[in-house]
Amino acid sequence: MGHLKVHGNLLSPATQRVFVCLHEKNLDYQFINVDFSTSEHKSPPFLAFNPFGQVPAFEDGDLKLFESRAITMHIVYVYADSGITPLVSKEIEKKAVEGVWMEVEKHQFEPIILKLDWELVMKPVLGMEADAAVVAENEKKLAAVLDVYEARLKESKYLGGECFTLADLHHLPNLHNMLGTQMKKHFESRPHVKAWCDEILARPAWKKVVDMQEPEWKRLAEMEKH
Amino acid sequence: MGHLKVHGNLLSPATQRVFVCLHEKNLDYQFINVDFSTSEHKSPPFLAFNPFGQVPAFEDGDLKLFESRAITMHIVYVYADSGITPLVSKEIEKKAVEGVWMEVEKHQFEPIILKLDWELVMKPVLGMEADAAVVAENEKKLAAVLDVYEARLKESKYLGGECFTLADLHHLPNLHNMLGTQMKKHFESRPHVKAWCDEILARPAWKKVVDMQEPEWKRLAEMEKH
Repeated sequence: MGHLKVHGNLLSPATQRVFVCLHEKNLDYQFINVDFSTSEHKSPPFLAFNPFGQVPAFEDGDLKLFESRAITMHIVYVYADSGITPLVSKEIEKKAVEGVWMEVEKHQFEPIILKLDWELVMKPVLGMEADAAVVAENEKKLAAVLDVYEARLKESKYLGGECFTLADLHHLPNLHNMLGTQMKKHFESRPHVKAWCDEILARPAWKKVVDMQEPEWKRLAEMEKH
Repeated sequence: MGHLKVHGNLLSPATQRVFVCLHEKNLDYQFINVDFSTSEHKSPPFLAFNPFGQVPAFEDGDLKLFESRAITMHIVYVYADSGITPLVSKEIEKKAVEGVWMEVEKHQFEPIILKLDWELVMKPVLGMEADAAVVAENEKKLAAVLDVYEARLKESKYLGGECFTLADLHHLPNLHNMLGTQMKKHFESRPHVKAWCDEILARPAWKKVVDMQEPEWKRLAEMEKH
């Protein structure tokens, strides 16, 4: 395939999901910043990439894609032999179970995190106050989901089985954000969830994404002060 | 693989998504009803299938799966040569684009439909009144999503490209429900969306699912009268 380009934002969890996948696969890519401050994601050139006006968008030569998980699925399919790990199994049973936990991330985990992320991560940066009722409701839901994760991670080292796969990788940006909030206690009080978080967040591919976003957080905090 | 079993509910769109995929693939299966009236989906035997307590669950011999779209992905992967159509492409570019529109169904289409379905399909059956503000908000969102679908379906016959794939199939249960409500006008006023709906809802595999659910709707309506 061709030259790889990621159009997105350094602080967007969905964009980070694509970055970490590319790093795991040791693939070079060009990053093109989409400027939210000028609503570039809603401008005609970006809407030609993604008609829903959301980051990231991705180019692999002439192929144009959007939706972070469709992009990671494409990367692992095409670049199966790059990097240390395939990130997805070929064996029928393993592949099927990884598929289940990829759906769980999307349907059970992320909807809760999107609400908590807005209340606890974005609002403080924007100088707004969190809505305590929304936090309480989603904190309860998060605890219930993490109980299921704890039981699952007692059975197998990773969500999809004994190998690190996309089922784990897709969680990384949201996990990182949540561990910087008061939600941290729910991850730390469950020993298997904690061990899983510690291990996957320590992967060099993710560390690179953390390093990339740090200057952007600083810039945002500076802007808020002025 | 082994003997196929679907644990679910005839009126659950997620269960219907698995049925229609099995019918497209001409596969025989056993249906095991999960009785919502006794909260069977929250009972330990069902929680052993799906710890989140949601239908459907699926068995393929010894392999146990949940999450409807993980189940359909497994079916098309393992039973690639069954049925009239593979439902997923092998060519890199086609497969990637189908993946994008499968994500769109999950992230853009379904969250809106779940709210409208509750207000306009389930509440009337349960003798409850729809919340007009929730309906109005989601109706607006639905129209915006269908504008994108209209533009897409002007370019290609199906969402994923020129072939009927899982990217279309995953929509069927929700499309069917919405066309039975006041939302119908949004689907009918967009000529390419209308042609797409007409065609995919007329597929014999989906007709079978409609026939299966009809006695259950009647039973529910009877119960409500008493």
